[in-house]
Amino acid sequence: MTQPRSFRYVGTRPIRQDGAEKVTGRANFGADLSFPGMLWGRVLRSPHAHAKVVSIDTSAASEIPGVKAIVTSADLPEQRPGGDPTDMYDLTRNILAREKVLYEGHPIAAVAATSREIADRAVAAIQVEYELLEPVLDLDRAIAPDAPILHAELRCAGSDPKPEGPTNVASRILIERGDVERAFADADVVIEREFTTPTVHQGYIEPFACVARTTEDGQSTLWCCTQGPFTVRSLCAALLRIETSKIKVIPSEIGGGFGGKTTVYQEPLALLLSRKSGRAVKMVMTRQEVFRATGPASASRIRVKLGAKRDGTLTAAEASLAYEAGAFKGSPVVAGAMAMFAMYDLPSVRIEGFDVVTNKPKVNAYRAPGAPMATFASESVVDELAASLEMDPIEFRLKNAVRQGSVAVYGPKLKAVGLVECLEALRDSEHYRTPLSENQGRGIACGFWFNGNMQSSAQIHVNEDGTATVVSGCPDIGGSRASLALMAAEELGIPVEQIRPIVADTETIGYNDGTGGSRVTYATGTAVIEAARDIVLQLRQRAAAFWDTQLENVGYEDGKAIPLGDAAENQQPLPLSTLARRAARMGGPIVGRSTWTARGNGPSFAAHLVDVEVDPETGRVEVLRYTAAQDAGKAIHPSYVEGQYQGGAVQGIGWALNEAYFYDAEGHLQNASFLDYRMPVASDLPMIDTIVVEVPNPNHPYGVRGVGETSIVPPLAAVANAVQAATGIRFVDLPMSPPAVLAAIDRTRG
Amino acid sequence: MTQPRSFRYVGTRPIRQDGAEKVTGRANFGADLSFPGMLWGRVLRSPHAHAKVVSIDTSAASEIPGVKAIVTSADLPEQRPGGDPTDMYDLTRNILAREKVLYEGHPIAAVAATSREIADRAVAAIQVEYELLEPVLDLDRAIAPDAPILHAELRCAGSDPKPEGPTNVASRILIERGDVERAFADADVVIEREFTTPTVHQGYIEPFACVARTTEDGQSTLWCCTQGPFTVRSLCAALLRIETSKIKVIPSEIGGGFGGKTTVYQEPLALLLSRKSGRAVKMVMTRQEVFRATGPASASRIRVKLGAKRDGTLTAAEASLAYEAGAFKGSPVVAGAMAMFAMYDLPSVRIEGFDVVTNKPKVNAYRAPGAPMATFASESVVDELAASLEMDPIEFRLKNAVRQGSVAVYGPKLKAVGLVECLEALRDSEHYRTPLSENQGRGIACGFWFNGNMQSSAQIHVNEDGTATVVSGCPDIGGSRASLALMAAEELGIPVEQIRPIVADTETIGYNDGTGGSRVTYATGTAVIEAARDIVLQLRQRAAAFWDTQLENVGYEDGKAIPLGDAAENQQPLPLSTLARRAARMGGPIVGRSTWTARGNGPSFAAHLVDVEVDPETGRVEVLRYTAAQDAGKAIHPSYVEGQYQGGAVQGIGWALNEAYFYDAEGHLQNASFLDYRMPVASDLPMIDTIVVEVPNPNHPYGVRGVGETSIVPPLAAVANAVQAATGIRFVDLPMSPPAVLAAIDRTRG
Repeated sequence: MTQPRSFRYVGTRPIRQDGAEKVTGRANFGADLSFPGMLWGRVLRSPHAHAKVVSIDTSAASEIPGVKAIVTSADLPEQRPGGDPTDMYDLTRNILAREKVLYEGHPIAAVAATSREIADRAVAAIQVEYELLEPVLDLDRAIAPDAPILHAELRCAGSDPKPEGPTNVASRILIERGDVERAFADADVVIEREFTTPTVHQGYIEPFACVARTTEDGQSTLWCCTQGPFTVRSLCAALLRIETSKIKVIPSEIGGGFGGKTTVYQEPLALLLSRKSGRAVKMVMTRQEVFRATGPASASRIRVKLGAKRDGTLTAAEASLAYEAGAFKGSPVVAGAMAMFAMYDLPSVRIEGFDVVTNKPKVNAYRAPGAPMATFASESVVDELAASLEMDPIEFRLKNAVRQGSVAVYGPKLKAVGLVECLEALRDSEHYRTPLSENQGRGIACGFWFNGNMQSSAQIHVNEDGTATVVSGCPDIGGSRASLALMAAEELGIPVEQIRPIVADTETIGYNDGTGGSRVTYATGTAVIEAARDIVLQLRQRAAAFWDTQLENVGYEDGKAIPLGDAAENQQPLPLSTLARRAARMGGPIVGRSTWTARGNGPSFAAHLVDVEVDPETGRVEVLRYTAAQDAGKAIHPSYVEGQYQGGAVQGIGWALNEAYFYDAEGHLQNASFLDYRMPVASDLPMIDTIVVEVPNPNHPYGVRGVGETSIVPPLAAVANAVQAATGIRFVDLPMSPPAVLAAIDRTRG
Repeated sequence: MTQPRSFRYVGTRPIRQDGAEKVTGRANFGADLSFPGMLWGRVLRSPHAHAKVVSIDTSAASEIPGVKAIVTSADLPEQRPGGDPTDMYDLTRNILAREKVLYEGHPIAAVAATSREIADRAVAAIQVEYELLEPVLDLDRAIAPDAPILHAELRCAGSDPKPEGPTNVASRILIERGDVERAFADADVVIEREFTTPTVHQGYIEPFACVARTTEDGQSTLWCCTQGPFTVRSLCAALLRIETSKIKVIPSEIGGGFGGKTTVYQEPLALLLSRKSGRAVKMVMTRQEVFRATGPASASRIRVKLGAKRDGTLTAAEASLAYEAGAFKGSPVVAGAMAMFAMYDLPSVRIEGFDVVTNKPKVNAYRAPGAPMATFASESVVDELAASLEMDPIEFRLKNAVRQGSVAVYGPKLKAVGLVECLEALRDSEHYRTPLSENQGRGIACGFWFNGNMQSSAQIHVNEDGTATVVSGCPDIGGSRASLALMAAEELGIPVEQIRPIVADTETIGYNDGTGGSRVTYATGTAVIEAARDIVLQLRQRAAAFWDTQLENVGYEDGKAIPLGDAAENQQPLPLSTLARRAARMGGPIVGRSTWTARGNGPSFAAHLVDVEVDPETGRVEVLRYTAAQDAGKAIHPSYVEGQYQGGAVQGIGWALNEAYFYDAEGHLQNASFLDYRMPVASDLPMIDTIVVEVPNPNHPYGVRGVGETSIVPPLAAVANAVQAATGIRFVDLPMSPPAVLAAIDRTRG
């Protein structure tokens, strides 16, 4: 692919098209839609973390005036176990518990009533008989020989030897390369540490919310906030066992997802309730429900062993990762295992991973799923190794950093990547040279994310006055409408203000996988570029017909069909606006289209630099300064690239310093609110500085690579390394909250 | 084009996809949408038919609490005269009067307020100073030498000699062919008559209704009932002089249009008011407003002279038509002139037409615009001619009927057409042989309509489970979703129940001209067929890649890619559903697309047969039996084809017997309600029988021709001919209402 060297619109920073609607409060989010006569749906949730469901009696609830429908798992068809990518047998049990409840908050029944209050009363009136079981609340207990078993039918996939009996270990994976034992023997220094990280939540501002409406002919419309409207459609159709064409999903604006809004919870319940009641049904989770019963990120225990030569060359890595999946199998341990050493040229590696079920909500994706905790472990040990060799931590990393041609730990031979450039940018920064004071420390860490591909469709319609509409099907979370419009403007050669980018529903655009995996600007963006090129071809064809010449005698530049060759002698350029105005007489409406299963989204590497000050009296860690350098390939709209770097850094800082789920001994979550689950707020942090490195991705026409996820990967280790520098204490357990830090300081003081 | 001989889905009668929503009252029509905090818009309308506007004072109105915005013509930019297809100079004056008011009901100002009542009060508080002028209320007065002039700048286009001064005759057209004088000299019989028809209204059930919402960045959304959302977008953008990409038009379901909903009235006002107030603004016309201030059909005066030989051969035709345009130029006189003799082989023709402005609402299209009144005249004289030659009226028409190869009066040489087949079907019908009683009479008449083409876009998305969505942009008035789904089913080879046809908004589908001109099943249907064939090609390409063979070794039949040639030896057919499920691995989402400026919609001819009984005591005409035969080319969904035949016949019967605008001497409409404007209701009529003739249109893959309009063309004359047969009286003035018929009977009785 030829990559244009200069851009007219790409790289500029126009106001995002959804900006005015959002700052004026007009934009419609999931809970903003209401219908006359609409019902409210509410969910009965398990108060127990682990119990058999003996019976459910909804008779009293159904007699409350205003109650219009009640559903239990009996209303959902049974599913076959297995399946790719989603195990529907598990999913239907997560939507509504069947044999057992597996976490506090696990849905058991749902009610639709004429008001939210009546629905809540009816939920309270449902009688459930439980047989209580001991809850499994952490990895230790889960793998203990006498552990209570969550799923009697679960056998460990990938275990060697073959699994015999029931277990809470759903699977074991192994990544192996080179002769690890010999490589460790060759090392001059070997460091081994074990780390733990707690369950954390994405903490998106907007709770799950939806409205479902089913008509008498079984046709449903579902408005909801989601990262993937087509995913919601697929999953709901499969759960209800109806055709996808029976469900139209209209994505609302979305107040954050970070991976957490890639599956369904109450959406199938709203559909069921609307089908049963014949009315529109609205369901909006409380923040408590979001914390208790939507997918957080895995808690983990990770052991890392790294060896290096005296000159700083890494020789071998070994790791063992155990990730909590929550109530049903499927933690991101594989991704964590593949990502944790991806920054380095490592000839010998052995990584073992375990996916472990516990009586907590089933985990879901959270920004670079699996990588932050694994990289917290690997980059902590890397730092310690550099220190033990008395090497500058950036120089140590530069010495081992992957570059074009390196074979990545996770398999492929890398094309152009920007890790070295990120490290060099930090090394050469003013930030890195600024002196520190007492109780202050500076940390660095690298991070990597694969970046996703999947399916995308795009359409562009040229309007009769020469303006254009860009239609995609991926909800805009981080400014993708702006970046797609910029790419269309670049190709069509018309001002970006004349382009209206929209996110369509599942009926009006071809299939699109969701907004996730940092894939939209790359995968959907490429589809938009191809759709625009489809239009440019049509414009050239029309000009050729008009000029009575061959297609090769028509170029396209700067928004105009240009006569070339013979045609240049007696023809004038034809602007897009003229061709648009004459469309009816030149072949009809002008529509560009492109669909593909994306390939080639380039990996994005980052290096983060952070200064902290640790208050020895309180244990509070203050982030003084933070610089995130990351490779964007090509930043289409630099403001939103910077925003991604900043947002990921902030979430990583929260994970490092404060965030954690606290359970009591019975498995009741103790801090299911933003008051008690302490995420960083603006006043907690300095401005996050950014360095946008641009090493073009050779697979994209403009060089784009995904940027959304990598930024959350380095901060956990970067902050831990800075705290180590400030205190001399190596923290291996997150979060480094004031009590934990103070306790460690006190221990050191003796 | 190859036309398949047999069909699997086309020609069947599945339940229409919007059926359940409509019969359960769930479907959303124009007035069904409301927003919290929404304002109501109301219009100040002229109480005078003709006056200068001296001044408008909105100060008192603007001080009423709850009034949020007021607009007058000063808020609309001035436009240049002329323009194609719409004269924006006239249109902006019809939206809001400037120098003059030109009909009772002419909008002068619009108000948005927090309730409809407050808006009405504010409208009443606007002070307008008028200088009254004499109104011009009929064609006679309009062309009188001392007539008041509506538009000082109007000169008669096409007049010969060149026009000198101001006039109310906006244009003159002439159609001439052969030597008319000699042809009349050759005739054995010549009959000449003059006819008049009154102003009538389409009488759609749903009044105009819309909601407009404009945000701070100037982006507007407009929900409205319209036949043409893209037309609404274009016209509003031009009237407000903003880009089309600033307006999204979402068409609601539509309760009838019949040509009347092809332009804008209050939509630009709602946009202006929402822009001024920053709030959503809803506007819903009353029935009175619909009658007084939306476009009815032209009143006409038509002189027809026809000559024939003794053997029944028509030799010559001459006609002069004057059509009222209402307040602004643009009656459908040209179409009437071209259509009135189109049923016959006529070597010599001379037709003159005049477009005349009067102080009534500007006319708009009404089903086969211009043809019913002209054909009332021509087919009345044809009947009289047959009678005077003592020929059976069907045989007389058969003798002169156009067929393949005939040169139509309006110009082209005809391809296959079905007039002869329609006439033969009636001649051979049991209806035609049934004896009649006293005071009963039987009438026949033919009719023709061109059928329109214009621009269409269609998309088809194949969902991951093998179901599909068919996206078009033409509002479904007469069942077009059903017919488009059937055509897609036929091409894709999957059951029609697996296809979801939808009407998209102006942002999510390529440009589409409106639902009108009987064009959708032909023009958009062809686009759907082409989009489906685009998909079939993609499926064959994917199968070829999967089988590692050439494209020519892959056929497609019955919903499956079929191995041919070498491939047939070791491959099994691949159903669409399998290819859909594997789409991600075989190239990505499957989207078919087609856009075109249609050509070749075949003309549709009809012949109608009606029995009436005339009550000599009251003058009431009762329709006893009615059979409508019409050529559909190919009936995709026969029920909706029959529905079109029935609906057109009923509207034509109403026009013939009862409908008319009554004005007082000052130009005030006296019967602006469904009580006083008497349209036929179900209890007035027998079941309308239909005969669906199918002479394939060679331009369409299945032979489709438009069917929606022709059916209103024959009834006026058919009923008049039946009344003549029952009473011996030739009625030349419509409507043949009881008082008019009784007066004529009384006159005959002497």
